Amino acid sequence: MAGSPSRSASRRLQLPLLCLFLQGATTVLFAVFVRYDHETDASLWHRGNHSNAENEFYFRYPSFQDVHAMVFVGFGFLMVFLQRYGFSSVGFTFLLAAFALQWSTLVQGFLHSFDSGHIHVGMESMINADFCAGAVLISFGAVLGKTGPAQLLLMALLEVVLFGVNEFVLLNLLGVRDSGGSMTIHTFGAYFGLVLSRVLYRPQLEKSRHRQGSVYHSDLFAMIGTIFLWIFWPSFNSALTALGAGQHRTALNTYYSLAASTLGTFALSALVGEDGRLDMVHIQNAVLAGGVVVGTSSEMMLTPFGALAAGFLAGTVSTLGYKFFTPILELKFKVQDTCGVHNLHGMPGVLGALLGVLMARLATHEAYGDGLESVFPLIAKGQRSATSQAMHQLFGLFVTLLFASVGGALGGLLLKLPFLDSPPDSQCYEDQVHWEVLGEHEDKAQRPLRMEEADTQA
Amino acid sequence: MAGSPSRSASRRLQLPLLCLFLQGATTVLFAVFVRYDHETDASLWHRGNHSNAENEFYFRYPSFQDVHAMVFVGFGFLMVFLQRYGFSSVGFTFLLAAFALQWSTLVQGFLHSFDSGHIHVGMESMINADFCAGAVLISFGAVLGKTGPAQLLLMALLEVVLFGVNEFVLLNLLGVRDSGGSMTIHTFGAYFGLVLSRVLYRPQLEKSRHRQGSVYHSDLFAMIGTIFLWIFWPSFNSALTALGAGQHRTALNTYYSLAASTLGTFALSALVGEDGRLDMVHIQNAVLAGGVVVGTSSEMMLTPFGALAAGFLAGTVSTLGYKFFTPILELKFKVQDTCGVHNLHGMPGVLGALLGVLMARLATHEAYGDGLESVFPLIAKGQRSATSQAMHQLFGLFVTLLFASVGGALGGLLLKLPFLDSPPDSQCYEDQVHWEVLGEHEDKAQRPLRMEEADTQA
Amino acid sequence: MAGSPSRSASRRLQLPLLCLFLQGATTVLFAVFVRYDHETDASLWHRGNHSNAENEFYFRYPSFQDVHAMVFVGFGFLMVFLQRYGFSSVGFTFLLAAFALQWSTLVQGFLHSFDSGHIHVGMESMINADFCAGAVLISFGAVLGKTGPAQLLLMALLEVVLFGVNEFVLLNLLGVRDSGGSMTIHTFGAYFGLVLSRVLYRPQLEKSRHRQGSVYHSDLFAMIGTIFLWIFWPSFNSALTALGAGQHRTALNTYYSLAASTLGTFALSALVGEDGRLDMVHIQNAVLAGGVVVGTSSEMMLTPFGALAAGFLAGTVSTLGYKFFTPILELKFKVQDTCGVHNLHGMPGVLGALLGVLMARLATHEAYGDGLESVFPLIAKGQRSATSQAMHQLFGLFVTLLFASVGGALGGLLLKLPFLDSPPDSQCYEDQVHWEVLGEHEDKAQRPLRMEEADTQA
Repeated sequence: MAGSPSRSASRRLQLPLLCLFLQGATTVLFAVFVRYDHETDASLWHRGNHSNAENEFYFRYPSFQDVHAMVFVGFGFLMVFLQRYGFSSVGFTFLLAAFALQWSTLVQGFLHSFDSGHIHVGMESMINADFCAGAVLISFGAVLGKTGPAQLLLMALLEVVLFGVNEFVLLNLLGVRDSGGSMTIHTFGAYFGLVLSRVLYRPQLEKSRHRQGSVYHSDLFAMIGTIFLWIFWPSFNSALTALGAGQHRTALNTYYSLAASTLGTFALSALVGEDGRLDMVHIQNAVLAGGVVVGTSSEMMLTPFGALAAGFLAGTVSTLGYKFFTPILELKFKVQDTCGVHNLHGMPGVLGALLGVLMARLATHEAYGDGLESVFPLIAKGQRSATSQAMHQLFGLFVTLLFASVGGALGGLLLKLPFLDSPPDSQCYEDQVHWEVLGEHEDKAQRPLRMEEADTQA
Repeated sequence: MAGSPSRSASRRLQLPLLCLFLQGATTVLFAVFVRYDHETDASLWHRGNHSNAENEFYFRYPSFQDVHAMVFVGFGFLMVFLQRYGFSSVGFTFLLAAFALQWSTLVQGFLHSFDSGHIHVGMESMINADFCAGAVLISFGAVLGKTGPAQLLLMALLEVVLFGVNEFVLLNLLGVRDSGGSMTIHTFGAYFGLVLSRVLYRPQLEKSRHRQGSVYHSDLFAMIGTIFLWIFWPSFNSALTALGAGQHRTALNTYYSLAASTLGTFALSALVGEDGRLDMVHIQNAVLAGGVVVGTSSEMMLTPFGALAAGFLAGTVSTLGYKFFTPILELKFKVQDTCGVHNLHGMPGVLGALLGVLMARLATHEAYGDGLESVFPLIAKGQRSATSQAMHQLFGLFVTLLFASVGGALGGLLLKLPFLDSPPDSQCYEDQVHWEVLGEHEDKAQRPLRMEEADTQA
Repeated sequence: MAGSPSRSASRRLQLPLLCLFLQGATTVLFAVFVRYDHETDASLWHRGNHSNAENEFYFRYPSFQDVHAMVFVGFGFLMVFLQRYGFSSVGFTFLLAAFALQWSTLVQGFLHSFDSGHIHVGMESMINADFCAGAVLISFGAVLGKTGPAQLLLMALLEVVLFGVNEFVLLNLLGVRDSGGSMTIHTFGAYFGLVLSRVLYRPQLEKSRHRQGSVYHSDLFAMIGTIFLWIFWPSFNSALTALGAGQHRTALNTYYSLAASTLGTFALSALVGEDGRLDMVHIQNAVLAGGVVVGTSSEMMLTPFGALAAGFLAGTVSTLGYKFFTPILELKFKVQDTCGVHNLHGMPGVLGALLGVLMARLATHEAYGDGLESVFPLIAKGQRSATSQAMHQLFGLFVTLLFASVGGALGGLLLKLPFLDSPPDSQCYEDQVHWEVLGEHEDKAQRPLRMEEADTQA
């Protein structure tokens, strides 16, 4: 990059050394603690004992692959909308997710499946790890373009721990239901990122304003992300619900909710748009709010009508958020939310949690029959009333907001450590800070020459 | 958009009001009529009664997800080839499909699963709704760039009803077999769109000719669509066939047919191309004709040889159609077929229907054994001879062409209603009519500024 | 293409005639030899005999679809990085894969499932054919931009045969284990392509150097390929492993290995990059080395720790290869490796084979229990010691390198036949040689006009 000053060795080495350290530490911890579970260990699994048809792997694996596609393709490309930050958006998505899924295997393993000194891993660990990576990528969306990769890895290091603890408190201690993660994934990820972005507030960000938009092609790339999130969301919400009717119903509700949020988004985007025109930012994001808003309740007896109503509400709220609330968030609350995660994950996540409160309150033995056992086990066993379950759900939302806020604040302080490499205000949303991009974007960069030049200059 | 006159309020409000009305009406109808079926209702489904392994959900869901990906990614991106219409291609695909799948759940539900005052929904409703959305998107391809989103929603409103009725007549009344929809989806969708495009014929479309081509990157985006359609077509054709050998055979036949149509397309494209050069339009589309042409027969005992032969034929016919017939269609028949759906869905769909006639005529108890029951139940039960089944298949094709033509004509008249917002002849194939695109495509559009400007001007 | 001389009729007709001949010959051979197997034939399959839950189709099909997506989307788009060769990269991927999967169905069928005069096809033939197509596409990566489509089809014609024979020797004669193809797919495909590229060495390739790089958008397109390969690699390695724990463990190991190779790649890319900057070439490719390196051993009791360590090693070796070895390969060994397949498939493939040797040597009855039967059947039956199995694995690597080298050399001689159409040194990495691309890439090419022009000039 012609004319830009070289970074000091200590800054240049931050990313490689942090990667090496984190991967080294993770590998050692895996060596000590992680073992195959009885479904993946050759000596523990016996074909004779249970037929393949009873092997849970086969009921979960297709959904896992959809979740995996959603996390990497979906989140990765959704953030490519920025005109000069595509390499970073996709690249750091890879880096963060790859680290988060190893690290959360350890964290969640210690909390959930630590047994006789070992963590046992299989299908569910993979899905849970991908869920955690999703939360980290949501937070990434709030600070996109304003943080370096070493900072992001430190963010993930902290966030994965808090994600695991929050989820453990909700699901195991409070008996909260949240199969698709309205609270544990979306609300947590969004407010963690927003508070962190608040702490990292840059008053001089105006200097990079000219790069903070999209170009025609970058918007089309982002739509790849949107579509992947949209089509695979039914699998995301149902990946870990009860096998059978539970999983089936979850997918169905999510499917309807997304359809309704899409029409709601188009209606509101055209309504508030200049001369009735649609805004690509709304379509890229708000059509997905239907998936977020049923994250808690899609396994419940929401009814197809309920799914449509919830999705429609989420799509409209999210679109209005992009139009009217994002500017306020920045001007009044000093929160610079690059991807608008408050509109896509924050508000719809909170709405989804409240919808879960309502559905828990309405749960009856009549409505659920034998299925009550798998959706609300504590009510089925008579240990809790529906009202009590509803209060626990509501309390779970507050706990999540608390963990996310405190965590985001801690994360912000951590990322402000002065020796950490962070892009200057005038170089935000710019790939060239982190990537070898020869000259301008339309340059005919030549690989072999690039190598030779590097050799010559070295 | 500098210099373009503002639209009147009544035109600006068409899309939002129509979205709100359609979503509102659908939601009310869902509230009144739609209920979970016995596989998705918590109180009706009993784990004890049948193991997960017998739950049809698990045999259908992976295919459903593939169909879903194919409809949204495939059709959405295949239409992105136009240089200035990418937002509309992908965006309206979302809008149309999201509405069609709700509306067709109702229409198909009333026709197929209306029971004691309710429609019961589950896995098969989702797949059927996606199939119907596919037909709507095929019609969209014929009028791409020449219709506004409100017009398109009205088209879908009508087409979904006729799709449902046509399918009901064929499958339930005539006992026609058409698992992958050569007739019900491809032939119907193509000729509905083509007749509609004929009614909407624009003699002055020349004014937008300079926008009616691709650029290098838009062709690459379109290839994303092509690949998704190609790889997931085996799941599309097999999504609703009989479990077991039927589904397996359908996927296999489709796989071979697509491979052969690919080589046929390359051969013909190079043969008719200037100086032996390949044409991206052919590759984007005609390689897929192999999936269309076995839509009816892939569940039958087509043999792997038959699949290759059919696919090869379809690939060559489709390529020749793009080269020689599309210009004639416009000049002589006044049908402006933006995506060439006549070549990809129309002719291969009719060929596929005829191949189904042939396969039905050749069906014997020897060739199908016990499998005859699931492929040709009426022949298996002795209620029909193979010849009679073949005649019914042929009659089904005529019924489809009739429904599509009459429906397309009605649709065209509906869309010509003078108060509907439609792009002028000089603004076809142009995103700026419908979307906020600041200045030219290479502009460095800035999101926050865009919002501020809108505020200032308001 | 203004100014470029027209090709002679014999050169123009090479591609169409070769396509027609190959498709014709394949179709005839299918007619004579290929039949449905007992799982796809309507008359042989009896629903009564075995429930759907025991139908292997349902355990393999979702993985097959992932492999299919990986081969077409993954390999197709990974090679789109070149600035002016996107049409060819994606287009010829289609052409080669579509031919390879038909041809390898025949070749592998003759070797593996020839019975009473017929080849019987079903799920496993489809997966095996896709695996073979993967190997052909790896070789394509080595010669990308320097060969015409007719040459590539001849390469595939030869390579598919040698792939089949090599695989047969390893798996059936030597009893080597290689479920994810570290040897049979990656090592074979890479060295076949590299030796072929050596034989086709172009000393004057400098003339096309200005086209041998990426532009900003082409690098983003390539990342679509990277992500698809990354997310679906667990399905690739496990597609044909033993049902149950074997498949589950294979997916899990691959998942961890890829995560670790990603962090290894980022660490090394930043370490060796100018001023600490990351190189998109490394990220696009080396993050995938973790999938290659566990291709042999992921079904074994590698342990999660082992998967992380192997993946990390592969990511670092691959990144260093791109930085330091690729230039040497060209300057010293005269191997022009366009996509760097030596770094992504060659070295990691050999490492993966050696890891398989180690894991075989370490195999014990204690570690595998009953699972030994499915992973190392010859050890389980007592026909071989672990040491003997390890030696056989090592011998399998040498056999693979031998077949690949001899095959690549033969292929190179075949492709040098003087009458074959090959791009001149100054027209390498250029779509306009093979495709109708009007003027420069940013041209507003108009489809209908293009057709009219062709008519006028004809």
